[in-house]
Amino acid sequence: MNGQDSLVQPLLTDFYQITMCYAYWNNGTHEEPAVFDVFFRKNPFHGEFTVFAGLEDCLRFVENFKFSASDIEYVRKILPNDAKPEFFEYLESLDGKGLTIEAIKEGSVVFPKVPLLTISGPLAMCQLIETSILNLVNYASLVATNAARFRQASGKNMQLLEFGLRRAQGPNGGLTASKYCFIGGFDGTSNVLAGKLYGIPVKGTQAHSFICSFSSPDELKIRSLKYKDSEKIGDLFEMSMEKRSWLLDQFNWGVVQSEVSDGELSSFVAYAIAFPDTFLALIDTYDVLRSGVVNFVAVSLALHDLGYRAMGCRIDSGDLSYLSKELRNRFVTVSTLKDEYKFFEKMTIVASNDINEETIMSLNEQKHEIDAFGVGTHLVTCQKQPALGCVYKLVAQSQQPKIKLSQDVTKITIPGKKKCYRIFGKNGFAILDLMMLDSEPEPQPNEQILCRHPFEESKRALVNASKIIKLHDVYWKNGELVTPLPTLNEIKEHVNTSITVALRQDHRRYLNPTPYKVSVSEKLYRFLHDLWLQNAPIGQLE
Amino acid sequence: MNGQDSLVQPLLTDFYQITMCYAYWNNGTHEEPAVFDVFFRKNPFHGEFTVFAGLEDCLRFVENFKFSASDIEYVRKILPNDAKPEFFEYLESLDGKGLTIEAIKEGSVVFPKVPLLTISGPLAMCQLIETSILNLVNYASLVATNAARFRQASGKNMQLLEFGLRRAQGPNGGLTASKYCFIGGFDGTSNVLAGKLYGIPVKGTQAHSFICSFSSPDELKIRSLKYKDSEKIGDLFEMSMEKRSWLLDQFNWGVVQSEVSDGELSSFVAYAIAFPDTFLALIDTYDVLRSGVVNFVAVSLALHDLGYRAMGCRIDSGDLSYLSKELRNRFVTVSTLKDEYKFFEKMTIVASNDINEETIMSLNEQKHEIDAFGVGTHLVTCQKQPALGCVYKLVAQSQQPKIKLSQDVTKITIPGKKKCYRIFGKNGFAILDLMMLDSEPEPQPNEQILCRHPFEESKRALVNASKIIKLHDVYWKNGELVTPLPTLNEIKEHVNTSITVALRQDHRRYLNPTPYKVSVSEKLYRFLHDLWLQNAPIGQLE
Repeated sequence: MNGQDSLVQPLLTDFYQITMCYAYWNNGTHEEPAVFDVFFRKNPFHGEFTVFAGLEDCLRFVENFKFSASDIEYVRKILPNDAKPEFFEYLESLDGKGLTIEAIKEGSVVFPKVPLLTISGPLAMCQLIETSILNLVNYASLVATNAARFRQASGKNMQLLEFGLRRAQGPNGGLTASKYCFIGGFDGTSNVLAGKLYGIPVKGTQAHSFICSFSSPDELKIRSLKYKDSEKIGDLFEMSMEKRSWLLDQFNWGVVQSEVSDGELSSFVAYAIAFPDTFLALIDTYDVLRSGVVNFVAVSLALHDLGYRAMGCRIDSGDLSYLSKELRNRFVTVSTLKDEYKFFEKMTIVASNDINEETIMSLNEQKHEIDAFGVGTHLVTCQKQPALGCVYKLVAQSQQPKIKLSQDVTKITIPGKKKCYRIFGKNGFAILDLMMLDSEPEPQPNEQILCRHPFEESKRALVNASKIIKLHDVYWKNGELVTPLPTLNEIKEHVNTSITVALRQDHRRYLNPTPYKVSVSEKLYRFLHDLWLQNAPIGQLE
Repeated sequence: MNGQDSLVQPLLTDFYQITMCYAYWNNGTHEEPAVFDVFFRKNPFHGEFTVFAGLEDCLRFVENFKFSASDIEYVRKILPNDAKPEFFEYLESLDGKGLTIEAIKEGSVVFPKVPLLTISGPLAMCQLIETSILNLVNYASLVATNAARFRQASGKNMQLLEFGLRRAQGPNGGLTASKYCFIGGFDGTSNVLAGKLYGIPVKGTQAHSFICSFSSPDELKIRSLKYKDSEKIGDLFEMSMEKRSWLLDQFNWGVVQSEVSDGELSSFVAYAIAFPDTFLALIDTYDVLRSGVVNFVAVSLALHDLGYRAMGCRIDSGDLSYLSKELRNRFVTVSTLKDEYKFFEKMTIVASNDINEETIMSLNEQKHEIDAFGVGTHLVTCQKQPALGCVYKLVAQSQQPKIKLSQDVTKITIPGKKKCYRIFGKNGFAILDLMMLDSEPEPQPNEQILCRHPFEESKRALVNASKIIKLHDVYWKNGELVTPLPTLNEIKEHVNTSITVALRQDHRRYLNPTPYKVSVSEKLYRFLHDLWLQNAPIGQLE
């Protein structure tokens, strides 16, 4: 089940796809066999890698492609009155059966210029689906890449939680974000619908409004909690109050009783009674060190006496590094009091509040004591670069290669149907991606392969591969899915392997990462440059 | 009909809303009457105004609020095993009937701290809907504001077209963007589904791939076009070729025949045959001035001979100001050749390619000749600030005011149920927004009203209003919509009036706009500060 099904439909496209479709049809070239490549020109976030995501959504879209009667009716309205009626019959007849889709495995690390998908089929049909394909790949890949960068920055042991629903582009923006952040490396989401639809673990505890809703113990309607392993009942509020007095006597935390909020304590008690085994408290509503942590420790120790183990606390403001270290100090101090309090030293500290990649790296440098980050805005909006910029370009038609020229060399397309390989070196890391003409023989390991920069003549290298992987598989042909699709967890695992195992650290690092090479074979180089010259008009001087 | 219906459902929420709901229910405070305010703290994009949008979506969400059996089943799975079974019966029984929603009119210009919506009802139910409401208001308001800023920058005569679908956060991100850019001030969208669902005018012509698909006249399968007002047939390709030769002889455009692409001409002819009355050509595939414009003028003049009138051209790269002026020059030159070519001077020039507010202002300074902007990425992703940051705060519970304190004064909430007014001065412009206690009498025009800054003691002013508007209406009560909802076009019109007619120019300008004042009454000021002191813990020094 997929929460997007109802919206991913043929009309989710730019109007010009429909006008072009009509013009192709009118010209009689709509059925000409065409090949389109989907690729991007620049890695996002000043980085040197991208995670490819959205493939399954593209395939489902093509699988279900069919204009409804009301769609056709609408298209009739927006095209000129004199549009030929046979065109609408043609539209009605369209489906994805004539398309062939080759793609890189979803979750792979990918690089500029290499086609993520190659879509072949009737010219007009290929053209019609451009916008939907770009819509489905662009944000999915962008946010998965962003999530992977958060994972890189925070290390493999950090718990990463996506909290972005309220800042995403509407309901489905939020769902898409949750799904692709998970595959990019996040452990869970706050988005319950994403949990239900995709099986992603859901996480969360309480908001400030919950804490504020308890001004005093009067708002605590029940105070009793059963001991975990007996029928005996304890008064969690009384027990927590006692623990609190004891704590303030015991430790020199620089706090006086009058500073510690009774409303906050009451809210913690109410929450702990509801969730005695998963108690995680938001402790910054009043003052983390002068109120929140005192109440949290008090309730946690009282819970402990009843046989339950608190999970941890969350801070959502202030100096997260300083606070996390102060909290850890207090937890360690508590843990040394009694053997049975040993668990306190590992108490989970969750931090949220405008976390981004840079914050995480700065926190790392300050040797923070945070166990989990909750990330919203910067993750789902991809603040640093909110669009990936994938494009969808015609590279062949009726067996003739097509090239899109531009005065800007980076915008020239690599023409023709291609095959693409990832070349690995002796140490197991990927060295470069190589594009070749479809007609060339496969490159072989342990042979010298000449790899050229597609546009800079002097940049070339001989490569001796220890391993070569063909990048594309056929996923959709003759109206059928012909390659099994991985589960979300398999895609997630593939992202991790693809980046962490196969990509050299210098390509992954935050500051001035080394660009990963994307090359063409000698034959493709010559083919590309010959075609370029053939197509570039010749000016005349005087 | 609304494209979001299927996704805007109770589970589209953060998990902590459900855990808090359980804790409230378990504590027996879930039915306590509560009041929550939705507001933001800072206008986006370094501006001093925001457009409020998303209200109808919120109301529809509340109207349809009901957990499905499978939702309940899922919640059962994610809550601890020992959660009480009665809670799920309670969830099943929940709907929006107990809520009251007051709101500012959708499309109004709004300012920090003033509640956009005030939601009253049972504590747990109010809490449950927080995330969905924020999700529906945040991006809608942000992107509507962005669109309104583009409109401000480009003036009322510019045609503004939203082309953002491929860069939005998935399918519904794109739909949401199209809808709210339209109300914010855009004239049309490329998004066909948005056209179908919301009745927004759809716009678009052709992509580079269409142009590239014609390498030579061989790919032109039909060349004939009927004269508009007779049965006579012309060969549009031959006629265009003749016009082109004639043009190159006639004018010193510094172009030789060999530079002008025949493939491009063929593609224009194919498109013009399909759309003879709405011919708009993308002219930058090869070279705007050395190929595109020559072919475009040639085909347009040939169309003219057949009785049709071309609409214009689009440029998607290069120096848009320079190119637009060069294009206008050529069009004007053509228009002076013959009386019947007069229409050529007004030929539409559409520009796209990474347009943002700053580009538009720079183009204005350079006195560009562009008639329409197509805007994608910067508009829908809100690159400059991709999240609005609306919050949802508890302000009263069981008739007691609630305040959320913070060491950061800008984060302190204004407690209690309030009434809010917009005060207008003699010249018809809005002077300030005023929040009062719900119990205070309405302020009256032509009386002195003392307005105070909510936190800065010395900032206060006496205001003599010429007109006072109450900002909030009750939209939802006792399970019914009680205020009629405006159409999309009415909301769009209201945005325009609300900004252009009522807001002083200095609040709207791009550079260092004057902050609009948001004040509280004397009584609310005292109430707020008393409550603050009551709730702030007292520290002790030595």
